[in-house]
Amino acid sequence: MKTFVEMWRDLAPLGRHPRGGYRRHAWTGADADCRAWFRDQALARGLRYEVDRNGNQWAWLGDPADGDAVATGSHLDSVPDGGAFDGPLGVVSAFAAVDGLRARPVRPLGIVNFTDEEGARFGLACVGSRLSAGRLTRKAAHALTDADGVTLARAMEAAGQDPDAIGPDPERLSRIGAFVELHVEQGRALALTGDAVGIASAIWPHGRWRFDFAGEANHAGTTRLADRRDPMLGYAATVLAARSRAELAGAVATFGKVAVEPNGVNAIPSLVRGWLDARAADQDTLDALVAAVREAAEESARREGVDLAVVRESFTPVVEFAHTLRDELNRILGGAVPVLGTGAGHDAGILSGSVPTAMLFVRNPTGVSHSPAESATEDDCLAGVAALTDVLEGLACR
Amino acid sequence: MKTFVEMWRDLAPLGRHPRGGYRRHAWTGADADCRAWFRDQALARGLRYEVDRNGNQWAWLGDPADGDAVATGSHLDSVPDGGAFDGPLGVVSAFAAVDGLRARPVRPLGIVNFTDEEGARFGLACVGSRLSAGRLTRKAAHALTDADGVTLARAMEAAGQDPDAIGPDPERLSRIGAFVELHVEQGRALALTGDAVGIASAIWPHGRWRFDFAGEANHAGTTRLADRRDPMLGYAATVLAARSRAELAGAVATFGKVAVEPNGVNAIPSLVRGWLDARAADQDTLDALVAAVREAAEESARREGVDLAVVRESFTPVVEFAHTLRDELNRILGGAVPVLGTGAGHDAGILSGSVPTAMLFVRNPTGVSHSPAESATEDDCLAGVAALTDVLEGLACR
Repeated sequence: MKTFVEMWRDLAPLGRHPRGGYRRHAWTGADADCRAWFRDQALARGLRYEVDRNGNQWAWLGDPADGDAVATGSHLDSVPDGGAFDGPLGVVSAFAAVDGLRARPVRPLGIVNFTDEEGARFGLACVGSRLSAGRLTRKAAHALTDADGVTLARAMEAAGQDPDAIGPDPERLSRIGAFVELHVEQGRALALTGDAVGIASAIWPHGRWRFDFAGEANHAGTTRLADRRDPMLGYAATVLAARSRAELAGAVATFGKVAVEPNGVNAIPSLVRGWLDARAADQDTLDALVAAVREAAEESARREGVDLAVVRESFTPVVEFAHTLRDELNRILGGAVPVLGTGAGHDAGILSGSVPTAMLFVRNPTGVSHSPAESATEDDCLAGVAALTDVLEGLACR
Repeated sequence: MKTFVEMWRDLAPLGRHPRGGYRRHAWTGADADCRAWFRDQALARGLRYEVDRNGNQWAWLGDPADGDAVATGSHLDSVPDGGAFDGPLGVVSAFAAVDGLRARPVRPLGIVNFTDEEGARFGLACVGSRLSAGRLTRKAAHALTDADGVTLARAMEAAGQDPDAIGPDPERLSRIGAFVELHVEQGRALALTGDAVGIASAIWPHGRWRFDFAGEANHAGTTRLADRRDPMLGYAATVLAARSRAELAGAVATFGKVAVEPNGVNAIPSLVRGWLDARAADQDTLDALVAAVREAAEESARREGVDLAVVRESFTPVVEFAHTLRDELNRILGGAVPVLGTGAGHDAGILSGSVPTAMLFVRNPTGVSHSPAESATEDDCLAGVAALTDVLEGLACR
């Protein structure tokens, strides 16, 4: 059986771009390589391997049909040019923790790789866990399309997964009595407290809104400024407004993705499409923030004579992780573990409506995430494995 | 021999996207289709067909080696999602005008399709005419690369053109005594004067500058605003500054193209690259405008903690078309033709340093250009053909 360090080394080259970032987008060749790695790990350990109707991979010690199972895991896919840790750390740590158990589990113990957590390709995050939890309909999933016009259904089919089989999986989830996701921290809270491992308290409510500014394509050299309907100006004003409104609200707002048509140097654009990612500690603050950004966008669109359409593409309400399970983890880990909120969405947040769910965070020295510069020391990773081992032992072996 | 209307109809479907715009980018399949059309027109008329070392296509009535030739034409490539007229109107009108000559030319008469005028694929406009006029070196041309990382050299090779043969063509140009390019107007001056056809006076100095804002990729949900180095903010502030500075200068400035890395909804970008297209009636105004935009960009980059690099990718000084030839055209056309300046670059502007050059404009009712909405009435197009016929007759047949 491979150690944590050996597993990490095997996974490292998969889907890595020559410039350093990972491009492990759902149902691509890189994703298939990661999935093959997961299957190999499961089989090498004699675990019961299965792929559920939504493409999530599971490896079981014991029979999940016995119920009251304990599950752990995360995801192997990445954002565009992402880091090595976001997702894979939780999956590799899961295998290593199961290997390190000093007692025989009395509850079934499962390891999962949720498919398409980042939503890098089809624009919606946590597709695998959303489908299983009944938080995304088959119809809506079939309508998801990547930048090349390939539907999720066609991409799944090409990867050998039946897209007509997708849907809610209440029976499978009802057999799980506790789900624990280990994840690299995506901020600097643990770096500031000086702890290698922390426990999650809550996930901020968050969502994605698409702002479509539609103007009139025209020649950049010959069209008088007064005759223009330039959507880039409305977009630019909205980017700046989002930042200042987020500052006022103590929240975060980001325009990280933009698509321009026709995107020619000497053409005034006909369309500028920008995606707002906004998150706040509570729902009211988030609602007020998004309303303020929208208002600023409408004002600048009016000023520039361009049309604006705003579409909410996804939304996740605040997630308070189960207090009982969180307290149990804290007890198992000796009671002195920091408890942190986070602005990042996770499969654990999606599942928490169906299954008692908790999260462990591993220290990230710079807080950088969704970037090749994302990092965690080997010592901290092994501290994470040790904590997860203790947790699984505490939950499943007594 | 096909009429203007028949030629126009044959050309219409080539490289047309289902949504209506043209994507006739240099050395693509759509470009090859347009080039095959040109060749067919030349051969159907028994003209001498040749492709020069830079891939420009020529069709000759008479032997250009006799010297003091008259040439006309334009380009067949398009901007991304461009209109039908910008370029092709000048080529189709050239064939129709030669067909309509009522006298036998005493000077050799040539029709040209300059390759890669729009620069849509490799980012530099007028590549074919620049190379021939010695205004672009072979080395610099070989370094041009499209968005997929394909070099111009490889693209030419794939299209059957020898990229090692490219370079200046002074002998060919020295045989041309006059070049006249007919083009759809890209503004509304003729619509305002009520004329179907006009003559160009000058092309404004213009250029393209690439602004690279480099920050730090990070998670959009978990990175505190204070910890961010978000290049999208610097870009947005610069877009707005360019517009306000251009207004003050009575010039035009446009950010119509942007590239973002990694361009993920939930990732703060590591890089935002925006292209500024700026033009003004004179050099001093343009220099001051670009300096002011650059200063605003530097200020916002400093404020956001991001790095800024500005690269001038191309520049064309003011072009005053040859007064003698312009006056000759005006005389041939009866003396009452409006004379207009323009903010658009053209192959005629590039050639004007080597060959006496003039331009005819055909009325564009809305002024819209570089867009599928670009238009000209059939009556005005035929008036353009008639004017060009008169001009060719006046220059080459007496």
